[in-house]
Amino acid sequence: MTETRLIETIHSRLRRLGIAQGNGVIAGIGDDCAIFRQRGAASDLIFTTDMMHEGVHFTWDADPRDVGHKALTRSLSDCAAMGARPLFCLLALAFPGESTQWVNGFYNGFTALARKHKVILAGGDLANTANISCDVMVCGEVPRGQALLRSKARPGDAICVSGPLGRAALALDTRSRYLPNAKLAFGELLRRMGVKCAMDLSDGLSLDLARLCIASNCAADLDDVPIAKGATLQHALHGGEDYELLFTLPPKIAAPKGARVIGRIVKGPSGRVNFHGQPLPPQGWDHFRPQ
Amino acid sequence: MTETRLIETIHSRLRRLGIAQGNGVIAGIGDDCAIFRQRGAASDLIFTTDMMHEGVHFTWDADPRDVGHKALTRSLSDCAAMGARPLFCLLALAFPGESTQWVNGFYNGFTALARKHKVILAGGDLANTANISCDVMVCGEVPRGQALLRSKARPGDAICVSGPLGRAALALDTRSRYLPNAKLAFGELLRRMGVKCAMDLSDGLSLDLARLCIASNCAADLDDVPIAKGATLQHALHGGEDYELLFTLPPKIAAPKGARVIGRIVKGPSGRVNFHGQPLPPQGWDHFRPQ
Repeated sequence: MTETRLIETIHSRLRRLGIAQGNGVIAGIGDDCAIFRQRGAASDLIFTTDMMHEGVHFTWDADPRDVGHKALTRSLSDCAAMGARPLFCLLALAFPGESTQWVNGFYNGFTALARKHKVILAGGDLANTANISCDVMVCGEVPRGQALLRSKARPGDAICVSGPLGRAALALDTRSRYLPNAKLAFGELLRRMGVKCAMDLSDGLSLDLARLCIASNCAADLDDVPIAKGATLQHALHGGEDYELLFTLPPKIAAPKGARVIGRIVKGPSGRVNFHGQPLPPQGWDHFRPQ
Repeated sequence: MTETRLIETIHSRLRRLGIAQGNGVIAGIGDDCAIFRQRGAASDLIFTTDMMHEGVHFTWDADPRDVGHKALTRSLSDCAAMGARPLFCLLALAFPGESTQWVNGFYNGFTALARKHKVILAGGDLANTANISCDVMVCGEVPRGQALLRSKARPGDAICVSGPLGRAALALDTRSRYLPNAKLAFGELLRRMGVKCAMDLSDGLSLDLARLCIASNCAADLDDVPIAKGATLQHALHGGEDYELLFTLPPKIAAPKGARVIGRIVKGPSGRVNFHGQPLPPQGWDHFRPQ
């Protein structure tokens, strides 16, 4: 079972039980963040949570400051994808009791990034475990009804990315250091320009674009993918963890500075992505795809 | 280094960096939940996050439905301790890809409890790891300024618990099944009665009462601790995971039905707890206390 299928199974169950939406939650599973609307408030709140596990998302020999930076970046990037401003986070961290120095480095990286983006660390949880893992929840705010959604792409929209792709995959291949950054200012810019549809590229363009198309019930034709310096086309098409933004522009909106048009949203089977006229199967990162 | 000390170190760092409070977060690290106040909203929102790890909080052979139930109960109990009503949760779950049946049982237990308390499961994260772990974030609401706090105990208050203690520790000792429940209705009742000070008993009375006294800068005299059937005094004084509520009553408020007065808040060294006149060292659960 793939991750996408597993999430759909869970989502169906929640709908059946009547706990998929309500209590102010106006959008639950299925986008980068959940959206919550509090009575009387001018802004919507968005929520996301992202785990990292030693051996899956990082190795023991990685600089702990980089791991802390990346742990927060993953959730901030979901926030950017909604066009939201991050307000605060919660950090759950599990580690072997004796790894005090590692933990100190992790907090250095995490809090330096939190400070840079003025994100409050409001609470968390600690546990003593054999392997290191963490989970970061971020809450952000966005003007009421203006969150960018995966489901808002329409045939005729231009498909864009916020920058060249494949840098993280290249770094993984060459075992070099690469610190991604969440495109928070860019996400807010898109929202102010009137863009409606965006998501972040965490699992690779081929997989994430297919997800966007499924959410919007449309297809995509790709023709031009900007490749990061030194990376290959494979890195750019399928590599995860770039944390660039993927978004679509209706004809009346011009691409903002720094963005690259890479194709077009078209009518077609939900989720089908073509690259230069040939089907591009989703090969990005899926935790549960059978090998 | 103990968990308490570690949290204090982290908190100091956040204050120094200016990311301990702000952006609407009016109470961060140091209570059962963080408190967030959104402009224009009539209610405050409270946030908590709790992890569970295989081998630390449960074993592989535990009924997965019980593990799912317990995972949500831990966070709901923090919500109860604030006198809040839970609204929604996020669930991050990591497990070996092949353990589909276990995961199904976990979701059964988790969603059954969510449904019972009308808690929306708004989103989450999944990962494929060798060992099972989860992290549950719960958001609740409480009328503005009315959240119950650890820091509101005053000398002269009666110390109370919502029920007999030691049941979870007894179950652990006898390897029998015990499913705790979050005291949500009781927490809301306390708030409506005008109670100001509460916390949940997750790590054992001796440790948790010391924490409450430190937060309130006072001491406590215990004389009568209700012991669950079959449990010992040690279970009741030091056993964790009962998830009863610990709270204090000013002289003008009578104890609600079901509650037991167990002692009195007094002036004295911050955090000192006496039991029948003798110092009661905190011996509850601490993830990081040197053995």
